Amino acid sequence: MEALVIHAPGDLRVEDVPTPELGPGQLQVRVRCGGICGSDLHYYQHGGFGTVRIQEPMVLGHEVAGVIEAVGAGAPFKAGERVAISPSRPCGVCRYCQQGLQNHCLDMRYYGSAMRNPHVQGAFRQQIVVEQWQAHRLADSVSDGEGSMAEPLSVALHAVRRAGSLLGKSVLVTGCGPIGALAIIAARRAGATHIVATDVGAHTLGKALKVGADEVVNVAEEPDGLARFGAEKGRFDVLFEASGNERALRGAFDALRPRGIIVQLGLGGEMTLPINTIVAKEFDLRGAFRFHEEFAVAVELLNKGLVDVKPLISATLSYRDSARAFALAADRSQAMKVLLNFD
Amino acid sequence: MEALVIHAPGDLRVEDVPTPELGPGQLQVRVRCGGICGSDLHYYQHGGFGTVRIQEPMVLGHEVAGVIEAVGAGAPFKAGERVAISPSRPCGVCRYCQQGLQNHCLDMRYYGSAMRNPHVQGAFRQQIVVEQWQAHRLADSVSDGEGSMAEPLSVALHAVRRAGSLLGKSVLVTGCGPIGALAIIAARRAGATHIVATDVGAHTLGKALKVGADEVVNVAEEPDGLARFGAEKGRFDVLFEASGNERALRGAFDALRPRGIIVQLGLGGEMTLPINTIVAKEFDLRGAFRFHEEFAVAVELLNKGLVDVKPLISATLSYRDSARAFALAADRSQAMKVLLNFD
Amino acid sequence: MEALVIHAPGDLRVEDVPTPELGPGQLQVRVRCGGICGSDLHYYQHGGFGTVRIQEPMVLGHEVAGVIEAVGAGAPFKAGERVAISPSRPCGVCRYCQQGLQNHCLDMRYYGSAMRNPHVQGAFRQQIVVEQWQAHRLADSVSDGEGSMAEPLSVALHAVRRAGSLLGKSVLVTGCGPIGALAIIAARRAGATHIVATDVGAHTLGKALKVGADEVVNVAEEPDGLARFGAEKGRFDVLFEASGNERALRGAFDALRPRGIIVQLGLGGEMTLPINTIVAKEFDLRGAFRFHEEFAVAVELLNKGLVDVKPLISATLSYRDSARAFALAADRSQAMKVLLNFD
Amino acid sequence: MEALVIHAPGDLRVEDVPTPELGPGQLQVRVRCGGICGSDLHYYQHGGFGTVRIQEPMVLGHEVAGVIEAVGAGAPFKAGERVAISPSRPCGVCRYCQQGLQNHCLDMRYYGSAMRNPHVQGAFRQQIVVEQWQAHRLADSVSDGEGSMAEPLSVALHAVRRAGSLLGKSVLVTGCGPIGALAIIAARRAGATHIVATDVGAHTLGKALKVGADEVVNVAEEPDGLARFGAEKGRFDVLFEASGNERALRGAFDALRPRGIIVQLGLGGEMTLPINTIVAKEFDLRGAFRFHEEFAVAVELLNKGLVDVKPLISATLSYRDSARAFALAADRSQAMKVLLNFD
Repeated sequence: MEALVIHAPGDLRVEDVPTPELGPGQLQVRVRCGGICGSDLHYYQHGGFGTVRIQEPMVLGHEVAGVIEAVGAGAPFKAGERVAISPSRPCGVCRYCQQGLQNHCLDMRYYGSAMRNPHVQGAFRQQIVVEQWQAHRLADSVSDGEGSMAEPLSVALHAVRRAGSLLGKSVLVTGCGPIGALAIIAARRAGATHIVATDVGAHTLGKALKVGADEVVNVAEEPDGLARFGAEKGRFDVLFEASGNERALRGAFDALRPRGIIVQLGLGGEMTLPINTIVAKEFDLRGAFRFHEEFAVAVELLNKGLVDVKPLISATLSYRDSARAFALAADRSQAMKVLLNFD
Repeated sequence: MEALVIHAPGDLRVEDVPTPELGPGQLQVRVRCGGICGSDLHYYQHGGFGTVRIQEPMVLGHEVAGVIEAVGAGAPFKAGERVAISPSRPCGVCRYCQQGLQNHCLDMRYYGSAMRNPHVQGAFRQQIVVEQWQAHRLADSVSDGEGSMAEPLSVALHAVRRAGSLLGKSVLVTGCGPIGALAIIAARRAGATHIVATDVGAHTLGKALKVGADEVVNVAEEPDGLARFGAEKGRFDVLFEASGNERALRGAFDALRPRGIIVQLGLGGEMTLPINTIVAKEFDLRGAFRFHEEFAVAVELLNKGLVDVKPLISATLSYRDSARAFALAADRSQAMKVLLNFD
Repeated sequence: MEALVIHAPGDLRVEDVPTPELGPGQLQVRVRCGGICGSDLHYYQHGGFGTVRIQEPMVLGHEVAGVIEAVGAGAPFKAGERVAISPSRPCGVCRYCQQGLQNHCLDMRYYGSAMRNPHVQGAFRQQIVVEQWQAHRLADSVSDGEGSMAEPLSVALHAVRRAGSLLGKSVLVTGCGPIGALAIIAARRAGATHIVATDVGAHTLGKALKVGADEVVNVAEEPDGLARFGAEKGRFDVLFEASGNERALRGAFDALRPRGIIVQLGLGGEMTLPINTIVAKEFDLRGAFRFHEEFAVAVELLNKGLVDVKPLISATLSYRDSARAFALAADRSQAMKVLLNFD
Repeated sequence: MEALVIHAPGDLRVEDVPTPELGPGQLQVRVRCGGICGSDLHYYQHGGFGTVRIQEPMVLGHEVAGVIEAVGAGAPFKAGERVAISPSRPCGVCRYCQQGLQNHCLDMRYYGSAMRNPHVQGAFRQQIVVEQWQAHRLADSVSDGEGSMAEPLSVALHAVRRAGSLLGKSVLVTGCGPIGALAIIAARRAGATHIVATDVGAHTLGKALKVGADEVVNVAEEPDGLARFGAEKGRFDVLFEASGNERALRGAFDALRPRGIIVQLGLGGEMTLPINTIVAKEFDLRGAFRFHEEFAVAVELLNKGLVDVKPLISATLSYRDSARAFALAADRSQAMKVLLNFD
C-alpha cells in the first residue's frame, strides 16, 4: 500500500509502506480521503514548527475518512461501513487520562506527529489499521470529504467548549483559515447570536460569511475596523483567536468586554501582550489544544446535518498529485481546506 | 382603552382601563398580540397557583408585542417601530439586582402577577406605557405573534443557560407544553446533539418532533419508554423537566447519567423524590425561574431567524373572544400557544 | 488473621480470614485502627440500607490505617511506614473513570460493600493487601486514629468541592454526625466565613462548636431556629445537608438565598420537597457521593495540621469488643466517631 | 484638616483640605491609619503608572481605617465605632454594576486615583466623609493597622476567587510583596494544601514563610529553582503572579500543569510570552483587578481571626513623616507594608 512520506522540507514522496496485521478489536480501513492541515503544511514547508523537527521519514496526515475492509475479533463494526478516524490515541492510564484530560496525555500517539521519537506515523496512506474506538460511522448523507473534516471540526468544537456556554453571546473570530472558519460554524451551532470575523484576505472572509459570520472586517484594508465595537469597554463576550498573530490578539483587546473570554487556538510563537489590559479588564485567556470526546460530537453533528462544512472544501486532488495539493493548500487567496483522494 | 381583567376564577372581563401618562424615557405602545401563558390559565381556572391568589381585579398577561405610538423624552425609539415588551421590571438597586440576579429582585414588578399586593397589573390591554429598556425592536420578518413569544422563549433560554454549555450533549425534555417545546428549540440552538422528549399527549409530541426533537416517547402509552436509555447508569447528560409532574421527574432518573444536570422548569407543588439516587448519582438539580438578559437574546434569535417558534402558534383569537381562547389554550390535545389579538 | 464478619443483622463475628498473597506493586498492611461508619452501623443493625442487603458473610469496614509489613515488587514504599488506606478501587477503564469521575465507576470495588455480588470484603481485619495507590503515608504527628478518619474526611472534602469555592461564603450544615461535623471542618478550611450548624442533639452540637461552627441551633428545642436567617429571601449561600432528614432539608429552604447551593450528603430514602421553592429560588441541589482524589487531600491536610479531627474521636475499643463499640457508635448522645483497635 | 497631597513626582505635601458636609446616609470618619500601596508609591516616584499621570494635585491613599465621628441621618452606625473604609465607589447603575461586576464600573470613583479627570481625591487625610456602605465595623481584636489592610487583603481575596476553589490545590505565588504575601494568606485560607513562593529578596521570602508558604525559592540565587516541580508536565494547579515581571510569569510555565490556572495580579506593562505553551498546555490566564464584595469578606476574616496579616506590617510612621515612610515602603529589603498614622 502507498503512503505520503515526508523526508525533508519539500521532499514528500509516495512510498510503499506495510499495513500492520489486524488484531482483535481493531479495524482495517481503506482510506479514501484526507485533509491537509496546517501542521502538514509546516512539515512540508519547514520540516516542522516551533522546536519540533522531522528526524526520520514520517507518513503525514491525521484528517482521514475511509471504508472498513476487515474487522478484528470483537469489534462492533462491519466491512463496508464508512467511518471517520480519530488520529488521537491517548494512553488511558496516565494522570491526565484519568482526569478526563486525554488531550494532555503523557504518552499521546497522535498520527503524523514528530513531537516524539520515533515519530508517530500518519494516516495519509491507502490502508490503515485502527482501534475500534478511533472509528466513527458516517451517515450516507456525509461525503468522505466531509468525514475527513471531523478532525478539524473537533478542534473547533473543543475550542468552543473551552469558552463555556455561548448561547446569546457576541463572538469575535480573528483569523479565518480552516480552523477559524470552523470556529464560526461551531460558535453558531453553540448559540452565539452575533459573530464578527476578521482576516487579511478577501477569499477567507468570503468563506467566513458563507459559513455564518454576521459581519467581517478586513484588517489589512481597515486596520481600525474593530474600533466600532469598543463602546462601554468593549462589546464582544468571547474571542476565538485563530490566526496565531500577535497583532490580531492585541487588536481585539479594546473590543472585548471586561471579563471577556479569549480562546487562543492559533499557534504563533512569542507574542508581546499588554498585560495591564489583561489584568484591568480581567480577561480570561484560555489555550485550546486538540480535542478528545469532541470527535464523536463532530461526527454526530455532521451526520445529523447540524453543521455544514462543505463551503470550506476548496478542492480534492489525488494523493499522487501532492505537490500541487500542498501548494494550493498553502494559498489562502484560493483555498481553505484541500483534500487528498487516496483511491 | 380596553383590557382583560380577571376578577375571580372563570370571571375574565373586557373592561376600560386608563393608560398612564407617558413620562420621559418611556414608550407608549399599542399592544397587538399577547400569548396566553400557563400562569394566565391558572388565574383563570383556579384564581391563582400555589399559595398565590387574586385579591383584587387584575389585568392578565405578560407575553406581548406591539407597535410604538408615542415616545417619551430621550427614549431612543420612533413611533411606528414594532417591539416585543419584557414584562420583567426589577428594581435595579437591591442586593440581587446588584449581583446580576434580577430575576430574584426583592422588589420585582412582573406584569400580571398576584404575587404582591397590590397586584402588578398585566399587559393584556390595547395600550401600555413601558420603560424604554423593556422594549426590543422586532425585525420585519418577525410577526407580532412570534414577537409575543419572546417572553416564553426567554424562559426556555434562561433554563438552557442554567444547564451550562449544551454543545454535543444528549438532552431529555419531559413535558412538551409550550415551555418544554421551547426548551427543545433552545437546547438545539445551544448545540445539543440528541434530544428526546416525553409527554402524555400525541399532539404535543408531534409538535416536539416538529421543533426538533430527535425522538419522542409517549409515556402514557409506553410507561417504560425511557428504559432503553438506562445502560451504563444512564445516557442523558441533561434533563429539562417542564411538566411539573413528579412521575416525569422520577421516571427520568434511571436514564440520566451520573453528574447529570436536571433543570427544573415545571411548577408542581410537592414532589416525593428518591433522594438517595440524587446523592449516589450526584445529580445536579437546578431550578430555573423567569429570565433577565435572555429577553434580548430571544428577540435577537427571532430577528435573525436562528430559531423558529411558528410551529408552536396554534391559533390567534380576538381578546374579545377570551373565553374561547382560554378554553383552547387549556386543551393540550389541540393547542400549544394560543395568542390574543388586541386590534 | 482475624476479621470482623457480618452474617446477619446483629450477628457480627470475629473470624479467621486468609490474607491474599502479596503481588507486585502491592503492599501488605498491618491494620491498626478502623473507624465505624454509618453504613457499617446499617449493616449491623438492619443488614443493609435502601435496597442493599447482605447476601453472604462480609468483612465490614472501610476507614482504616495501619503500618506496612511487606512491600511487593516495585511499590515505592518501605516496611514500617504508616499509611491511611483508601477503600475506593475504581476500574480505571470505564467511561466514568476516563472522565475523571471514578466515584461513579461502572465496576467499583469499595471495601465492605454489599452493593455488588459477590460482596466486596472490607478492611476490619488485622492484615490486608492493598494496591500501592491505595496507601497514603501518614506524618508522625498523625495518630492511627486520625489516619483512619482520612476516609470520612474525604467524603466531606468531596462534598465541599461539589459546592465550588466557599471563600467568604455563609454556610449552613444540617445534621452534625461525623460527616456533618467533618463538613464544618472542611468548609472552614475552604474559607467559609460564617458557619451555622443544626442538629437535634446537644452532644453533637457541642462537637460542632468545637470543630468550628460559629453558631448552632438545636432544632428539637427550637424548631423555628433558622427563621432569623430568613431576611431578604435568605442568608446562607450554601447548605450541606448531612442528616438525610426531610425536615432538615425543607426547614433550610427559607434561610437559603436565591441561587443557593445545596449539597446533599445525607442518605434518607424518599423525601417530599416543595419543588416550586427550588424553582422560584433557583436552588442548585447537588448530590455528593464518596470521593476520589480527595483522599490524598485529606491525608495531606492531616499531615500538615491544616485540619484537626481529634475532637470527633469519641472512643477507641478493641475489635474483639465490637458489640460495645457498635452500640456506642449508634448512640449519638455520647459518641461521634468510634474507632476499633486491631492490634 | 490635613491631607497628604501629591503635586508631582517626589513632591508630596501636608496640606489643609476641607471636609465635605455630612449628608444623609453618610458617615464622618476620623482616619487613624493608612497603608501605602504600590500605586501610591508609583505616584510618588514617577507621577503615575502606565499611561496614567497626575494632572492636578491629588490626595493619595485608599487603604484606611478610622473611627466614626458623626453619623448622617439614617445611617446604621454610631459615633465611636471603628471601621475599615472601602475606597471603591461604583455607580451601581451601569451595565457592569447591574451584572455584579462593580470593579468594572463605567463610572468608578476609586480613592486616590488619577485614572479619571478630575482625579478622585484619596483618603490619606485626617477626616473623611463616606457612604455608609463603604464602612465595615472592626472587632476590638483588630488594630487600626490591620483594619487598613482590609483593602489589599480584598485584592488578594478577589484574586483567589478568580481561581475558583483552591481546596486541596497546589499553588505557586511569584512575587512576594504585600499583595503576593496576602495571596499566600488568602490561598491558605481557601484550602490550598501546598504553597510555594518565589521572589528575588530574602526579606520578602522570609515573610512569605511567616505567613504560611510551605517552601520558598529565591530565583535571584537559584534561577532554575522551579525545575524540580516540572515532572509530568508540571505540578502546580494554580499560579498567582504578583510580581508583574515577565520572567516570573514565563519561568513558571514549566512548573504549571496542563489546564493550570494563572491569576495575573501584578501590573507590568508589556510582556512577551510563549503563546504556544499557553495553547498546548491549555493554560487559563485570568486577570484579577481590585475587588467588590471581597472587602466585607476581608473584614469578616480579620474580625474572626481567620487570617493574620500582622506579620506583614513593617512599620507605622506619622503622616507628617511621609518622605521617610515612602522611602521605607519602597525598600523591599526592609519593608512589606508601611502604615501612616493620622492622629
